[in-house]
Amino acid sequence: MRPPSTSARPATAGSAPDPQAVYDEWDAFTSWAQTADLPAAAPFAVEDLGPPVPRPRQVFAIGLNYSDHAAESGFRVPDAPTVIFTKWVSCLTGPVTEVVLPDGGHTDWEVELVAVIGRLARSVSEADAWNHVAGLTAGQDLSERAGQLAGPSPQFSLAKSLPGFGPTGPWLVSPDDLDDRDDLELACSINGEQMQKGRTRNLVFSVPPWSRRSPASSRCCLVTCSSRARPRG
Amino acid sequence: MRPPSTSARPATAGSAPDPQAVYDEWDAFTSWAQTADLPAAAPFAVEDLGPPVPRPRQVFAIGLNYSDHAAESGFRVPDAPTVIFTKWVSCLTGPVTEVVLPDGGHTDWEVELVAVIGRLARSVSEADAWNHVAGLTAGQDLSERAGQLAGPSPQFSLAKSLPGFGPTGPWLVSPDDLDDRDDLELACSINGEQMQKGRTRNLVFSVPPWSRRSPASSRCCLVTCSSRARPRG
Repeated sequence: MRPPSTSARPATAGSAPDPQAVYDEWDAFTSWAQTADLPAAAPFAVEDLGPPVPRPRQVFAIGLNYSDHAAESGFRVPDAPTVIFTKWVSCLTGPVTEVVLPDGGHTDWEVELVAVIGRLARSVSEADAWNHVAGLTAGQDLSERAGQLAGPSPQFSLAKSLPGFGPTGPWLVSPDDLDDRDDLELACSINGEQMQKGRTRNLVFSVPPWSRRSPASSRCCLVTCSSRARPRG
Repeated sequence: MRPPSTSARPATAGSAPDPQAVYDEWDAFTSWAQTADLPAAAPFAVEDLGPPVPRPRQVFAIGLNYSDHAAESGFRVPDAPTVIFTKWVSCLTGPVTEVVLPDGGHTDWEVELVAVIGRLARSVSEADAWNHVAGLTAGQDLSERAGQLAGPSPQFSLAKSLPGFGPTGPWLVSPDDLDDRDDLELACSINGEQMQKGRTRNLVFSVPPWSRRSPASSRCCLVTCSSRARPRG
């Protein structure tokens, strides 16, 4: 009798390539892409896209990271990124998705800059940190605030990881393709009304500083940095 | 010009099978195992074993979960598992490992019961929850306490996920092979001195209750339940 097959398989159905697989060979992929004779582009609908990084090894997110909001609200801006939380990989979706809001009305939103680490990045200097970033994309940090703050020592991750609570995408932009990778606009609208707008130059901790906190094997992790320049209320 | 290969590959080197792959076909595996004509056992050294689940989709851990300790210390035992934190997958190792302790001497330890979810387990009833458990193993929840409690809203995950901070194993035991899966001894010794000893019947939240909190895609996640019956000091 033979054991069932245990060979690894791409996660996507049919013959579609698995976007996750490319991050394990990122350097080879980018050098190929520079000279590749690419076929004509095929049309696609954005709502058919999944997350650009479907199964990152880690997601870590830096909280209390918006200097404008800190100034307005009287919070002291921390000296180092102390509030580092995670969202669970199971909550990641593409950019167009349906989310079932939990009962009670406590669900909140925050636009995020999402950096995808393409190279192992342990103990990287700030000057070298951008060289480890495969690309940037946008994300939403949905949170069920009642659960996030419940209990004797509130841990954020579960209430930020309900099904669909991590939309990302639609695609990855290489830092090389940006005029100024340290000054990007981030905005969030709800039903046509703009709720947030800010620029990443106002982040307290931008992309490079996370590298100092990066744990062992952070290749293909997501780092999200919120820029909440115009908070509600 | 051809793109670089992006096919999925087992994570382990050479021809060794990838233990992770079996969890995607857990039912097929267990029914095969019941009648398989297994070859003669081969000797191995425990220190050569990696983690029984090298790349779980999630790790979630239930804190404040030891009724004896709560009674001793005067803490109120919570009504529901409110302190749910995570350890990052990158910190998982096999049972025999070397860990570089961070400077400052704040590293602490706690023995854990680790349950591996073998079937999708969203909104499972408590009565059915054990049927979703592929197996149990032991784990250590190493924590760097200063980092764990730092900042304005301490988030545990990073300080519990430094390199090597999640030893697990040596192997998975099927709940069917246990006389009483709800009453297991857990103990922890340091340099021959027993620091913890307890039984899982004293867990406030044992294996079944996690199922109510289980997020969307929790197949192949780890759930750890601490039993700290004899705390230090």
